[in-house]
Amino acid sequence: MTKEIVSIVMGSDSDLDVMQECASVLKEFGIPFSMQVMSAHRTPELVAEFAASAAANGIKVIIAGAGGAAHLAGAVAANTVLPVIGVPLAATDLNGMDALLATVQMPAGIPVATVAVGKPGARNAALLAAQILGLSDAGVAGKLGAYKKKMAEACREKNQKLQNKLKET
Amino acid sequence: MTKEIVSIVMGSDSDLDVMQECASVLKEFGIPFSMQVMSAHRTPELVAEFAASAAANGIKVIIAGAGGAAHLAGAVAANTVLPVIGVPLAATDLNGMDALLATVQMPAGIPVATVAVGKPGARNAALLAAQILGLSDAGVAGKLGAYKKKMAEACREKNQKLQNKLKET
Amino acid sequence: MTKEIVSIVMGSDSDLDVMQECASVLKEFGIPFSMQVMSAHRTPELVAEFAASAAANGIKVIIAGAGGAAHLAGAVAANTVLPVIGVPLAATDLNGMDALLATVQMPAGIPVATVAVGKPGARNAALLAAQILGLSDAGVAGKLGAYKKKMAEACREKNQKLQNKLKET
Amino acid sequence: MTKEIVSIVMGSDSDLDVMQECASVLKEFGIPFSMQVMSAHRTPELVAEFAASAAANGIKVIIAGAGGAAHLAGAVAANTVLPVIGVPLAATDLNGMDALLATVQMPAGIPVATVAVGKPGARNAALLAAQILGLSDAGVAGKLGAYKKKMAEACREKNQKLQNKLKET
Amino acid sequence: MTKEIVSIVMGSDSDLDVMQECASVLKEFGIPFSMQVMSAHRTPELVAEFAASAAANGIKVIIAGAGGAAHLAGAVAANTVLPVIGVPLAATDLNGMDALLATVQMPAGIPVATVAVGKPGARNAALLAAQILGLSDAGVAGKLGAYKKKMAEACREKNQKLQNKLKET
Amino acid sequence: MTKEIVSIVMGSDSDLDVMQECASVLKEFGIPFSMQVMSAHRTPELVAEFAASAAANGIKVIIAGAGGAAHLAGAVAANTVLPVIGVPLAATDLNGMDALLATVQMPAGIPVATVAVGKPGARNAALLAAQILGLSDAGVAGKLGAYKKKMAEACREKNQKLQNKLKET
Amino acid sequence: MTKEIVSIVMGSDSDLDVMQECASVLKEFGIPFSMQVMSAHRTPELVAEFAASAAANGIKVIIAGAGGAAHLAGAVAANTVLPVIGVPLAATDLNGMDALLATVQMPAGIPVATVAVGKPGARNAALLAAQILGLSDAGVAGKLGAYKKKMAEACREKNQKLQNKLKET
Amino acid sequence: MTKEIVSIVMGSDSDLDVMQECASVLKEFGIPFSMQVMSAHRTPELVAEFAASAAANGIKVIIAGAGGAAHLAGAVAANTVLPVIGVPLAATDLNGMDALLATVQMPAGIPVATVAVGKPGARNAALLAAQILGLSDAGVAGKLGAYKKKMAEACREKNQKLQNKLKET
Repeated sequence: MTKEIVSIVMGSDSDLDVMQECASVLKEFGIPFSMQVMSAHRTPELVAEFAASAAANGIKVIIAGAGGAAHLAGAVAANTVLPVIGVPLAATDLNGMDALLATVQMPAGIPVATVAVGKPGARNAALLAAQILGLSDAGVAGKLGAYKKKMAEACREKNQKLQNKLKET
Repeated sequence: MTKEIVSIVMGSDSDLDVMQECASVLKEFGIPFSMQVMSAHRTPELVAEFAASAAANGIKVIIAGAGGAAHLAGAVAANTVLPVIGVPLAATDLNGMDALLATVQMPAGIPVATVAVGKPGARNAALLAAQILGLSDAGVAGKLGAYKKKMAEACREKNQKLQNKLKET
Repeated sequence: MTKEIVSIVMGSDSDLDVMQECASVLKEFGIPFSMQVMSAHRTPELVAEFAASAAANGIKVIIAGAGGAAHLAGAVAANTVLPVIGVPLAATDLNGMDALLATVQMPAGIPVATVAVGKPGARNAALLAAQILGLSDAGVAGKLGAYKKKMAEACREKNQKLQNKLKET
Repeated sequence: MTKEIVSIVMGSDSDLDVMQECASVLKEFGIPFSMQVMSAHRTPELVAEFAASAAANGIKVIIAGAGGAAHLAGAVAANTVLPVIGVPLAATDLNGMDALLATVQMPAGIPVATVAVGKPGARNAALLAAQILGLSDAGVAGKLGAYKKKMAEACREKNQKLQNKLKET
Repeated sequence: MTKEIVSIVMGSDSDLDVMQECASVLKEFGIPFSMQVMSAHRTPELVAEFAASAAANGIKVIIAGAGGAAHLAGAVAANTVLPVIGVPLAATDLNGMDALLATVQMPAGIPVATVAVGKPGARNAALLAAQILGLSDAGVAGKLGAYKKKMAEACREKNQKLQNKLKET
Repeated sequence: MTKEIVSIVMGSDSDLDVMQECASVLKEFGIPFSMQVMSAHRTPELVAEFAASAAANGIKVIIAGAGGAAHLAGAVAANTVLPVIGVPLAATDLNGMDALLATVQMPAGIPVATVAVGKPGARNAALLAAQILGLSDAGVAGKLGAYKKKMAEACREKNQKLQNKLKET
Repeated sequence: MTKEIVSIVMGSDSDLDVMQECASVLKEFGIPFSMQVMSAHRTPELVAEFAASAAANGIKVIIAGAGGAAHLAGAVAANTVLPVIGVPLAATDLNGMDALLATVQMPAGIPVATVAVGKPGARNAALLAAQILGLSDAGVAGKLGAYKKKMAEACREKNQKLQNKLKET
Repeated sequence: MTKEIVSIVMGSDSDLDVMQECASVLKEFGIPFSMQVMSAHRTPELVAEFAASAAANGIKVIIAGAGGAAHLAGAVAANTVLPVIGVPLAATDLNGMDALLATVQMPAGIPVATVAVGKPGARNAALLAAQILGLSDAGVAGKLGAYKKKMAEACREKNQKLQNKLKET
């Protein structure tokens, strides 16, 4: 059993549906990860302890998903020098614009690597983690190269299908 | 020397100019207060300790001003059951809309009493604190009544001045 | 029969579904409250009278929910020195951004303690009222502490469930 | 001395610079008007009395300018069946978007005729008042026709100047 | 058969559902009106002719509803000195914010009396027209007074219902 | 003297400073153009006549710059089947977001080719016109190719300068 | 078999439903076109090659539809001097505002002719292409004139239907 | 002379003032870096070549700053599997909201690690790069820990200064 090196945290279990995207990509890349619910506002000590001990626990990258006044990624980043990736979630009437600004507009000194709102962001958070890990893990780097080619190939195939469809009509 | 019962905190000393408005109103009301710089991101433990011990230290209301991904009020609120008032500051290129959303859109369970962006908000934070304290302090309540009358009177005087000016022309 | 000390008002009966969240939290805390429909625009005198007499009627905190050009909280605040909590509701095509700005951007002198748009805000309005009352009511303060612990516990349990689920797969 | 038939109100004397534009246009049209400072939040009774008695006082159209959580026009409209024109002012860090939404998004039943943010809006408020009065005052209607022609002429002249300038270069 | 004095125009027949609200209010007030589909972009000459001849045809107030880059109200206003009321419609992916800004931000010289986005705005456009007509039609003015009372009464009844409901539980 | 084939129009002479950018690029490309002030709201007939006769007058592309509820490009497009390019201008308190939405959100059937807000948009409007004309004018097409190379070269030179500067420090 | 002169590209096959609108209009005008899926981010070389060789391949106008951080139109425009039309798609939680700004706010030097978000924009992109082609193709120009008349006629018929419907009630 | 491992690129030399913040932080950390001007739109091939060869050239992290329709970070990310950090710049009338959305809303598959708009973002981009490099470079990791402590200390000192100042008054 491999020790996890990426840690996914989310503010509420209602965020699981979106953050699952993150997990599947990491699985696809064979990157061991943990996934936890913890809240910057409901369990602040837990978040602080988790973040402060993450590096010592072998974690290399932390991915935090939250909606509304999304402070989770920032609260984690405040307590670690590991790279922290923030996924803003569209969980309120304001459609994720609140989470995006609350995640990305961090003050100088405490970066949060912010990705897109919702599912595309959740997938990209995992890929960004892989890119970071790939810098010192040739296996992951190789898989990233292959993934990029596969994406390009899939795009070309979709185009081919469209061409076939267009010819028929 | 009276013990402070309101605590003003701000994320950076560059917020002082705006938060000073808050201090002047409290002074005007004779409400003892402290004012400190502490950052949810740069000194997270300090913020947690401060908030967790505020009630025991005799604090009744906490006012937190911050800009950008303004987490300070939320980080305080996560660690206390005292009422927390958040003042969003216009400290970035996005003009305070970021701070407003990061302050007001708190998840169910952890309220932050949010006031207007910038100086009017800073003044109102102090008045809101006074209103809260006035519930069990007849002196403050009386001053609030007087303040409200004075405001109305000032408004009427401004109108009178305008009428005089209009007559002249 | 206990006399109510919190007053919930809302601009329209269509706001009831959201404001009910507010009522349930107050009930949970054993805080006696009234709940009324009154409109800053359709029944302005009623609102003014209600607000002006609230303190004398034993009310300590007023919670006002409204959508669109949400003036209710401001109209109440103009007529009382009690703390007024505003809940912006997403009742128009503009998704609550209109109600948020119309509630929070109050001029210096007349604060409205604004919470999040919609249901999370409605719940938090009740909790903020409890926090204010808790300053002079040890019973409520105690319940707030317990509530905070219960929330943290619930968060931990959700995490535990997630861990169990992850182990299974 | 003619009795005023348009009433300009504004929330603060700091709004005078913009609302002066309104006054100049009414003067140009020879429409007698009053201009007053009164605040929906600082002098709510005054606003209610003013609005409720405006029709009996011979007022036909009310123009209200305010910034931030701009409630003045709505508060006036709540207390009269006269047409009320709202001028949103850019008086906060949010550049007038707050005042625009707080003025225009009125609930069904209580219209406010909203014009553009700031000076162009202030001028247009006066012209809209003139258009309304012109329905039953042939003199004003005639002046509106003349004003429209003059504007067109001015536009043509500006174009002519540009043509001359272009020929020279 | 009475001659119409209010003219409702809309940019597309897909706007009918919303603009129908406008028509019902006018019917309720016994104000004769016409309702037409015409487009600032598809039938610009028709719009110009309609607007230019409206006054001569006995029209007193024009109400124009449009979505997206909503130019209809502005195009009408450019061709008449009658008061023009604009109803911004939420007809695109941008939820009516586009129509609101395109309707309200008219340049100095050509006012459009803008009301709220969508159905509340459509109803208010009719009421605003009634308020304008009521200045010289005591019958309409009387109905407006009655309407205002009825609204207040309906609001009080809704409150009564809520009180009854609350007592039961 | 060559006959103009591009026509620049702008809603006000205060737009000249920005639209001048457009003129300089056309001059640089040797494309003959006219430049006029005309307003969709102040001189609607002029705009309609201008647009309706543009094709017959030898105009191939029309560029329209306007701010606020920017209807000029749309009003032109309604009256011609020539390609119309819209330049939204930041002329109000809302910073050009109003002009952008009022220009770009045209209904199906009447396109306006919208470019960026302000000066970059004004330059690009001219280049887009050149691209359109270049389809049937090899001279212009050649100049476009050269312009693109020059831009790339300028970018490389700026980089070279930066490299030199970096070496020095 | 005629050689295509317009090329429609889109970032993903999920954009096909919207971009189909574009294809139908081109078909209606008898303008030969190709339609391809290619991604600025997944197949950047393909996009660059496609754009760089489009002119040589006889393409006259390129239409690019994309959502989110919509770079496709800009990436195409960077590699050609042909006119490029950008269709912003509402493909994320931010409702197309992201795609609109990412498409229209191009820097000076590289224009993208941006149309409305979504289906109206897709139709208008095709019409704009036809307008551009119509400058040197009298057949297309004639069809555009006919299309404009048909639209006006359809608008008038919708109005007629409405009149009939109104008479019945 | 050490080989650079971080590469800063920016779309224009006018971005240098902001991106310089990035350079100073990297210098402070002793991380060798290059800094170049290159444009996704003006020199697309250069950007593609740069990005495609970056990994082979020993680059580990790329930082890209751009304003408006900020495509630079995305264009780089499309051509590499290295982690790419995007700094949105406030370079247009829309205050950086355009650059933020164009940078952060990347589609699934191609992440860009986005930081705050402007100078705080530029500093944080460098720190994020250091955090990434620190995963396999104990020296950098150590400096990050020290930097974090220094920030906390600076924050405490600012607070101390404030306390001293408060005592004096």
